[in-house]
Amino acid sequence: MENIPQRTVERFFRYTQFLHSRLEAGAEHVFSRELAAAVNISPEQVRRDLMNFALKGTPQKGYPIREFLAELYQHLESSSLTKMVLIGVGNLGKAILTYFIRRRPNLSIVAAFDADPERCNRVYSGCQIYPVERLAEIVAKEGATVGIITVPAAGAQQAADALSRAGVKAIVNFAPAQLKLPGDVFLEQLDITLSIDKAAYFAKKTALKERTT
Amino acid sequence: MENIPQRTVERFFRYTQFLHSRLEAGAEHVFSRELAAAVNISPEQVRRDLMNFALKGTPQKGYPIREFLAELYQHLESSSLTKMVLIGVGNLGKAILTYFIRRRPNLSIVAAFDADPERCNRVYSGCQIYPVERLAEIVAKEGATVGIITVPAAGAQQAADALSRAGVKAIVNFAPAQLKLPGDVFLEQLDITLSIDKAAYFAKKTALKERTT
Repeated sequence: MENIPQRTVERFFRYTQFLHSRLEAGAEHVFSRELAAAVNISPEQVRRDLMNFALKGTPQKGYPIREFLAELYQHLESSSLTKMVLIGVGNLGKAILTYFIRRRPNLSIVAAFDADPERCNRVYSGCQIYPVERLAEIVAKEGATVGIITVPAAGAQQAADALSRAGVKAIVNFAPAQLKLPGDVFLEQLDITLSIDKAAYFAKKTALKERTT
Repeated sequence: MENIPQRTVERFFRYTQFLHSRLEAGAEHVFSRELAAAVNISPEQVRRDLMNFALKGTPQKGYPIREFLAELYQHLESSSLTKMVLIGVGNLGKAILTYFIRRRPNLSIVAAFDADPERCNRVYSGCQIYPVERLAEIVAKEGATVGIITVPAAGAQQAADALSRAGVKAIVNFAPAQLKLPGDVFLEQLDITLSIDKAAYFAKKTALKERTT
């Protein structure tokens, strides 16, 4: 397996996003300049990326989208199923469970966990909710490799520790907390409140500037 | 108003997050090394940041948390209310509406919008949901400066255009779509599926490496 850097992986996933939206809109071909404009990446970078693919385009029609996607997925090795678990079935956890149901054939949330007994032992959006004590057992049984944390900040480190001990290889953390993880566990931090705080700060700044000029 | 760089703003918000969690745990003082470890920032950087504040700590107890927070909020000018609107009252939109109700006194979602008439003209989590046609009118009436986009990818650019025309100064976009915005509108992109895709990719890579060594 090649070593693709994190930024390239991100760029490739953005390409797939855009190509899927073009397919849904009925397009069969795409020009590299369209792709560059859509994902905010320089046309030079797109062309450099394309040189790695065995993809033939024409100046009239551009590149065939389905073949382009097949190449991208081959590089991203997304053809095999990745099993994920989610901890914390509050509003955000439920939104994520609902989103992933059947939308992504190769990404599946196979189990959800919650510390609150009232939320457990039922099915939400097709996903069984277990008491958090059963995490290690279910992760091992299912072979889950990704953990999604949607618990409040105070419980996030504990959830992360349980996930690492259970053997997941990557964690997506939505809790507004900085996690300490073993070096071999990939961490993706998605801090919704931090992003909204930042937006509010810069909005205030722009509004103030407009008032004073 | 000082020009604080985006990375400093982000760091300051992370400090406030940690300080609030310590206050909630009953602490009154904090050491700079604790703060540095908690937010994954070098102790040198924390000390450099602290030099900008009129804050007195002692080697025995550290810094008083409440005064520290007051200084941070003064720099971040978070004492005034920021009004926000949200477009797209699906699962994720609902999760965000519910989160912000009363939790953040200075950040308030004052109205929500949806293109689906069935979702409109009712109240969710204390927030009135309007038809999207009324966006410009309500944003102006409320003086909202931040827009949160939680519509599907296909509708995101249209939502962003409507928000910019209505005069918001910053947009937080959750839709998996790259937006084009006027240069004076601050954009924060939070792509949940992209983050989960990346985590799945690196999980697969680590799992493969372990199998082959």
